[in-house]
Amino acid sequence: MTKLKKAATKQSLKVDLDRLRDNLYELAKIGYNEEDKGIYRTAFSDADMEARRWLVERIEESDGKAHIDEAGNVFGKWFDDIDKPSVLVGSHTDSVPAGGMFDGALGVLAGLETARVLKDQKFKPKRPLELVSFADEEGLFGGMFGVQAFCGKVTLDWMKTASTVEGLRIFDAMEAQGLEPMKVLNIARKPETIHAFLELHIEQGPVLETKGLNIGVVEGISGVYKWVVTLKGKANHAGTAPMNMRSDAFMGLVDFAHEIPRIIEEDGTENSRLTVGMVELKPGNPHTVPGEVEFSIVGRDMKNSIMRNLANSCQKVLATIARRHNLHFDFAEHSWLDPYQCHEDIIDSFSRQAKALDLSAVVMPSGAGHDTQFMAEIVPAGMIFVPSVGGISHAPDEWTNWPDVENGANVLLNSVAEFLMQN
Amino acid sequence: MTKLKKAATKQSLKVDLDRLRDNLYELAKIGYNEEDKGIYRTAFSDADMEARRWLVERIEESDGKAHIDEAGNVFGKWFDDIDKPSVLVGSHTDSVPAGGMFDGALGVLAGLETARVLKDQKFKPKRPLELVSFADEEGLFGGMFGVQAFCGKVTLDWMKTASTVEGLRIFDAMEAQGLEPMKVLNIARKPETIHAFLELHIEQGPVLETKGLNIGVVEGISGVYKWVVTLKGKANHAGTAPMNMRSDAFMGLVDFAHEIPRIIEEDGTENSRLTVGMVELKPGNPHTVPGEVEFSIVGRDMKNSIMRNLANSCQKVLATIARRHNLHFDFAEHSWLDPYQCHEDIIDSFSRQAKALDLSAVVMPSGAGHDTQFMAEIVPAGMIFVPSVGGISHAPDEWTNWPDVENGANVLLNSVAEFLMQN
Repeated sequence: MTKLKKAATKQSLKVDLDRLRDNLYELAKIGYNEEDKGIYRTAFSDADMEARRWLVERIEESDGKAHIDEAGNVFGKWFDDIDKPSVLVGSHTDSVPAGGMFDGALGVLAGLETARVLKDQKFKPKRPLELVSFADEEGLFGGMFGVQAFCGKVTLDWMKTASTVEGLRIFDAMEAQGLEPMKVLNIARKPETIHAFLELHIEQGPVLETKGLNIGVVEGISGVYKWVVTLKGKANHAGTAPMNMRSDAFMGLVDFAHEIPRIIEEDGTENSRLTVGMVELKPGNPHTVPGEVEFSIVGRDMKNSIMRNLANSCQKVLATIARRHNLHFDFAEHSWLDPYQCHEDIIDSFSRQAKALDLSAVVMPSGAGHDTQFMAEIVPAGMIFVPSVGGISHAPDEWTNWPDVENGANVLLNSVAEFLMQN
Repeated sequence: MTKLKKAATKQSLKVDLDRLRDNLYELAKIGYNEEDKGIYRTAFSDADMEARRWLVERIEESDGKAHIDEAGNVFGKWFDDIDKPSVLVGSHTDSVPAGGMFDGALGVLAGLETARVLKDQKFKPKRPLELVSFADEEGLFGGMFGVQAFCGKVTLDWMKTASTVEGLRIFDAMEAQGLEPMKVLNIARKPETIHAFLELHIEQGPVLETKGLNIGVVEGISGVYKWVVTLKGKANHAGTAPMNMRSDAFMGLVDFAHEIPRIIEEDGTENSRLTVGMVELKPGNPHTVPGEVEFSIVGRDMKNSIMRNLANSCQKVLATIARRHNLHFDFAEHSWLDPYQCHEDIIDSFSRQAKALDLSAVVMPSGAGHDTQFMAEIVPAGMIFVPSVGGISHAPDEWTNWPDVENGANVLLNSVAEFLMQN
């Protein structure tokens, strides 16, 4: 890992919460649906593009240089007379359908606020500051398109086939917005032009609120794997088949799922997650012993080796239970994504700046995916979380209290300032 | 219970297996589907009615008096010069879609064979013998229409609303076959005209085959109840919600289902069954902690009090687990059918006749419903099972070996003869 030099600022800088809040409310009007109170800014929709043009205006009125690249990523740049790699700050402004007003938007507008405070304070950085709002972080077209294009991870093959689950091709969606999809293959940014990437995001989970903490300093994005498991027994009339003469596939799943807490205790960590979220019984009739069950296991951890241990344990337990219940056991590993580590110097900076601001902070994994995970592959990158009320996100009632917004923006501001002062 | 007098026959009578087998194969051609090898004689279909007319011909060529009533029930009568309540034997000739060749058909054709053997042997009974093939035993229209009409349990309201799940009204289905549905309300048979009802059926379960037994003497039809249970927790991102901060509805179901063997051990009998056959997770997404689960519990036993104990235990366990997982627990009792007891003198007769034929027999409950359960409400009734290969039924590969067919038909024949000799 690149070693970033520490350079503590003497006194903490402060964002203007009123200005940031006004921006968040203004952006929230774009794509707002009165009926369900949700925000609809799915990638390359009219509302998504309107929000990007709105951001360009905000950047320009804050004396930044703005542009939108061929992937739809919006950039702003300040202190651009300095010929050094930039400190990049940002997130995304696209949303899921019926999303909330903080997911992505907070990171982008706190980044904008950072630029404004530094301009206002006549801050003299040693590097330029850049702001980004990446395109399609929510994965409407099956990836994190904007950041992947920026990192040079988008291929022509992918561009040709990527589409929404409803079948809208990314090619058509982009052309309808006046973008030139083929040019996306040329926009990859040279990593050596970026000094560090910093992102502020809402937690989208219950940890900070439950523990009464102000700031989550993200140590990395959990790795995640998805298995689809099939247990096959024998469908029987639920009346004529005595309990001890059944090959009940569902009872096999029950015995397995009952072992999940033990598997995590023995082979996992406090960062481990094992979730059975999809279950399909066949025939699925109340009066028939289930002859077959197909179910998903999604496993997560911050370490690849732990993920593999969890997967191995699941396999061993399933094989044993299949024998016990006279079931045929099969599974397919649909995906395996390695964990991404945030840069230790950024983790360290966020932690120190939180402390300097007298905020409580915890180093924690991110269970959800973020733009940071792709940035972490090419440059030093890191992110912080602020509490989500009730852990709710991707829904109209997604909320973060204003003091938490302010705290997060202040930590981001001071860490950005710190990295801007590095040689 | 009416006490039936015992009258042992001196030497066991024997059916003509070749004749019975020929009949079974002949009937199996009606409604046979070459593609899936299944039998399609659903109630009031053309094939069902053709089978009923075919049965009338077989009765008449066996010197019986045949008729089809307004419900579609086929009757044959022998020794009808004797003015006494009849011994009634039979089952049904309708099938499920893609059914097998023994379910119902065996009981009807073994009953016909009984009549033929007794005629051939110039048997001198003290009562008439009647044969019946009831209509829609398989419940296409939501009941056991034929036997319920025969027992006077069909109402005008029911007739007006009964329909298949696809929406075909019984009224229309019957009229299309030239039957007059409104007349069904007048066909109820006076119980005092029937001395006893005896039915032979395939087991449709694995018990006899697994235990290597020839004959199952049915002690009664299990009572059955159906609950639909809802557990509501909170849907969360499977990555951002730590294991100990979830209200995972599926894990609540898992903990409950894991207790089923204990619940039966503590509160049930060897006749008890508890089955979870239907499970619906919401949202059902692999990457989301299931916020809600709806599932069925179907419980069975031969005693109402045991069924109630099982239901109470399920409720108690579910309430405890709901508290433990922070879930909201709700359930609806969709149905509760009391058990039906077979008549002890018929159980006794079947057991004795099996023994006289040197066959192994066990007294056992029927977990599936049969015409006998409605007959048992109005007259002394009972039934026997013969082994089903692999416990399979309601499928093209339903099978019963010919020696077992012969054994069952012989036991039926000799018990019928015994009851025909009673004063």
